[in-house]
Amino acid sequence: MILGQNQYGKAETRVVRVTRDGSVHHIRDLSVSVALSGDMTEVHLSGSNAAVLTTDTTKNTVFAFAKEHGVDSPEEFGIHLARHFVTSQETLHTARIRLAEYGWDRIATPGPEQHSFVRRGQGTRTAQVSYDGTAWQVLSGVEDLVVLNTTGSEFRGYLTDRYTTLPETTDRVLATEVRARWRHHDGTAPAGGWDRSHAQVCDHLLQAFAGTYSRSLQQTLYAMGSRVLEHCAGIDEIRLSLPNKHHFLVDLAPFGLKNDHEVYFAADRPYGLIEATVLREGATPAIPTD
Amino acid sequence: MILGQNQYGKAETRVVRVTRDGSVHHIRDLSVSVALSGDMTEVHLSGSNAAVLTTDTTKNTVFAFAKEHGVDSPEEFGIHLARHFVTSQETLHTARIRLAEYGWDRIATPGPEQHSFVRRGQGTRTAQVSYDGTAWQVLSGVEDLVVLNTTGSEFRGYLTDRYTTLPETTDRVLATEVRARWRHHDGTAPAGGWDRSHAQVCDHLLQAFAGTYSRSLQQTLYAMGSRVLEHCAGIDEIRLSLPNKHHFLVDLAPFGLKNDHEVYFAADRPYGLIEATVLREGATPAIPTD
Amino acid sequence: MILGQNQYGKAETRVVRVTRDGSVHHIRDLSVSVALSGDMTEVHLSGSNAAVLTTDTTKNTVFAFAKEHGVDSPEEFGIHLARHFVTSQETLHTARIRLAEYGWDRIATPGPEQHSFVRRGQGTRTAQVSYDGTAWQVLSGVEDLVVLNTTGSEFRGYLTDRYTTLPETTDRVLATEVRARWRHHDGTAPAGGWDRSHAQVCDHLLQAFAGTYSRSLQQTLYAMGSRVLEHCAGIDEIRLSLPNKHHFLVDLAPFGLKNDHEVYFAADRPYGLIEATVLREGATPAIPTD
Amino acid sequence: MILGQNQYGKAETRVVRVTRDGSVHHIRDLSVSVALSGDMTEVHLSGSNAAVLTTDTTKNTVFAFAKEHGVDSPEEFGIHLARHFVTSQETLHTARIRLAEYGWDRIATPGPEQHSFVRRGQGTRTAQVSYDGTAWQVLSGVEDLVVLNTTGSEFRGYLTDRYTTLPETTDRVLATEVRARWRHHDGTAPAGGWDRSHAQVCDHLLQAFAGTYSRSLQQTLYAMGSRVLEHCAGIDEIRLSLPNKHHFLVDLAPFGLKNDHEVYFAADRPYGLIEATVLREGATPAIPTD
Repeated sequence: MILGQNQYGKAETRVVRVTRDGSVHHIRDLSVSVALSGDMTEVHLSGSNAAVLTTDTTKNTVFAFAKEHGVDSPEEFGIHLARHFVTSQETLHTARIRLAEYGWDRIATPGPEQHSFVRRGQGTRTAQVSYDGTAWQVLSGVEDLVVLNTTGSEFRGYLTDRYTTLPETTDRVLATEVRARWRHHDGTAPAGGWDRSHAQVCDHLLQAFAGTYSRSLQQTLYAMGSRVLEHCAGIDEIRLSLPNKHHFLVDLAPFGLKNDHEVYFAADRPYGLIEATVLREGATPAIPTD
Repeated sequence: MILGQNQYGKAETRVVRVTRDGSVHHIRDLSVSVALSGDMTEVHLSGSNAAVLTTDTTKNTVFAFAKEHGVDSPEEFGIHLARHFVTSQETLHTARIRLAEYGWDRIATPGPEQHSFVRRGQGTRTAQVSYDGTAWQVLSGVEDLVVLNTTGSEFRGYLTDRYTTLPETTDRVLATEVRARWRHHDGTAPAGGWDRSHAQVCDHLLQAFAGTYSRSLQQTLYAMGSRVLEHCAGIDEIRLSLPNKHHFLVDLAPFGLKNDHEVYFAADRPYGLIEATVLREGATPAIPTD
Repeated sequence: MILGQNQYGKAETRVVRVTRDGSVHHIRDLSVSVALSGDMTEVHLSGSNAAVLTTDTTKNTVFAFAKEHGVDSPEEFGIHLARHFVTSQETLHTARIRLAEYGWDRIATPGPEQHSFVRRGQGTRTAQVSYDGTAWQVLSGVEDLVVLNTTGSEFRGYLTDRYTTLPETTDRVLATEVRARWRHHDGTAPAGGWDRSHAQVCDHLLQAFAGTYSRSLQQTLYAMGSRVLEHCAGIDEIRLSLPNKHHFLVDLAPFGLKNDHEVYFAADRPYGLIEATVLREGATPAIPTD
Repeated sequence: MILGQNQYGKAETRVVRVTRDGSVHHIRDLSVSVALSGDMTEVHLSGSNAAVLTTDTTKNTVFAFAKEHGVDSPEEFGIHLARHFVTSQETLHTARIRLAEYGWDRIATPGPEQHSFVRRGQGTRTAQVSYDGTAWQVLSGVEDLVVLNTTGSEFRGYLTDRYTTLPETTDRVLATEVRARWRHHDGTAPAGGWDRSHAQVCDHLLQAFAGTYSRSLQQTLYAMGSRVLEHCAGIDEIRLSLPNKHHFLVDLAPFGLKNDHEVYFAADRPYGLIEATVLREGATPAIPTD
């Protein structure tokens, strides 16, 4: 029997950091998951915890670092944490920090006080920082970003077999919930900073989705990924996972009505799922992190 | 044995209605739940369906009406449906239509084509229309609207007993997920229309939340509700359900750090739950609809 | 402006109570939600908390009572809590305690130690206790109890209109997720106790579902409810909410295959929703508790 | 720009297969997700679908195969599907089929008819079958299997640093939600069949959880994994993901009460997360499948 790949840590620590600039307040709202690995054979075999920094301590560290370092960006906060764990304990060799950030918009109020916020809801920002004492790997990402084109999408010319019943279409609704993760060249902050870089990538994703006449969701995916790589020099790779949120044209003929691309049924399950990675040529390969 | 209150229908029909104004498209995205009651004793006792319009037909009607009437607003669409069911079948006496609308923002694109959208995510609009052949009851609402004040909230002067351990505080984060339903005077559309009325109420809710110095979440709730009634003449009643999404100040003293209202832990469960109705004096009472 | 119906309290306190009978342990696992009302005008108008027992204290009380009174049953535990809140504070006039209990089965092990459990997953037991200082209202219930008949269900003879397309069927799968709440005559424990009573009702619900040849889900619902009232003298009323979890026969004809009631597609949304109350004749009416 | 790893298919097709043995019926209830890869460069670059078997066709195939092959087990059903896709189309080179099975228990009824079922709820069975035209990789698994020991667990002797506050404990509740996936030596069915093998592994997991005096959750994890490998010759590897579902002893001292391991608060987030793989020595390495 051999102990294979293993990791441990505290998942989903929910930390909210408030910064007060006079009567103007700022917030960053994160869910932080820490995963550590190192000299962990003994704890698995005998249960000795001598090499284990407890998950409770990793949670405390998240809170303490929010005070000590602040939260400039999810990526920067993850870098602080990963460096700390790997460099502070001899038994810990690698750290992977996953972060989700929930966005807040300011509620516009008349007075000088600015301390009221409403949760944005549109997409969740993610980051993942991995460090092994030498190399950094930083992934930024977005989830739950739901987009839809009411036209400009067709689907035809596909393979058919005995089980094929789908009719071809030259005009369909194309909708998906974007899940994207892009890998930065290294752990260095992009020019303009992590926040600006993230906003730019999201804008490129939306523009490519909206601007691509789509013959397949794969083509749209590739257009989204390659546009990001073209415009963002420091990004080596992007992985997109796009569920095809089917919107079926309802057959209204039984009611004597014509459905001229007006009424759709939004289905839940099953759904198509299209996943691919687009890479910059010559990029260093990714370090597996699962 | 007696058959008491009963109702049936199709729940959560997901209909998306696209309107094309040249190359500029518009969408309304609804989940529609129909509940009908009437001469339903026999179907319960013997299983005879002679008085039953099937739930499948009610689903078809939702799709057909999206074509025939369009979707001007959730309220208006619900009124069309409720009137249809009650007036078209002798055996159906009352209808209650519940609707949730998912908001979409336009993706700004350079060309004249405007057919790309991104889901808003900030709050879900709701409506409920009840009709018994005579009286209309229309409730508008919002759910999942998450708001937070980083200051301007205290909590003290409360009752204590043997089980009380909570220390008083003069400065806390106050956060909640607004669930509100307001009742219109009757089934007549407000001046400016249902969409404008809904936007105004949501704005009043946000402004009251942001602008109230809070001694208790109850006080904030009442301020939110009464502001809506003060400004919106056609609304007789508003019910608010406000979970207290606790943000606990993290104790950083063990780490030699001072937490000057900077680092909070956002807790999931348990949570306080504050619910109340604010009514206009002299308003006609609501018809129970559950 | 008038303050209408209102209530407050701590929702979803998750308490696990362990009882040790030598090396044989027992557990009860509850989610407890407290809702209180009383002299609450002032806290809404001015924010004065002088009449408010904090939700934090109600949470502490749940934990303390789990120690002091133990958890004999959700109903009994709710009765202890409701009585305490209403009788211990002058400002609190009514209490409504909602409880969900998660079931655990023992993991059979060879030794005398019996302290290992696996979560049952089949149905969640619920209870709701209301007390106003005079009258008790106890509802027991079950949720998430998913049942399915592969035959013995038909659906035909229904009304049709312009929007009807559903073909009649003489043999369909009937599946639902039972949500039931039954009202006891008063707050007195049934002969045999609350646990035994709950098990009996659940068994009657399953037997009636399995043993009824169904011409409509309404008929099945009524058979389930009336069977409970017939067999359980202390129960005055039962309310059932039964989503029709549609299992559609897949059309395999395009593939040259016959589908003789063998292959079904289990759909998510939309779904039929059938709700009704069955009452014992002459029963005292229920006190509204929402 | 290079197209990297990619796959597509239909996710979460919900198929229920009924088999009638006279008046005794049997059901298998699956969610099936198909992921295919092959000559997919063109569809990403130009949108040409000439090499694409549509996700709709893969869904149809799931339903048709449920009829043609029946569902002997999730693993066997996945093998049929994977073989079909890879061997029937030149453009498809690999297939990965993921399956979740929902368990149903029979409702015991007096008559000879046996066609009524109640959903089990305790754990979800999973399977994953991968095929590249040559090699098979079959993973079986279980999810949502929640287990708890009320004693027999301690946690001490761990590393401490500046951020450590956790006190050591010699008696705690240990609870987790087991997610396990084990890899079979090849695609050959185990002696006794896939169903029996699955039941045996689950039983070993429960017995190891219950029978291990735990000094750390890692130790329990390793005991669970190694017990499976010891007893099941055809299994080469098992990966376990165990969230530490914290049950905190409630401090009742402020209420003058002693909490002798009786009252616990079941917390949601954050939670510890312990993940590791246990391998048979000399086993062939796994094929990556994400």
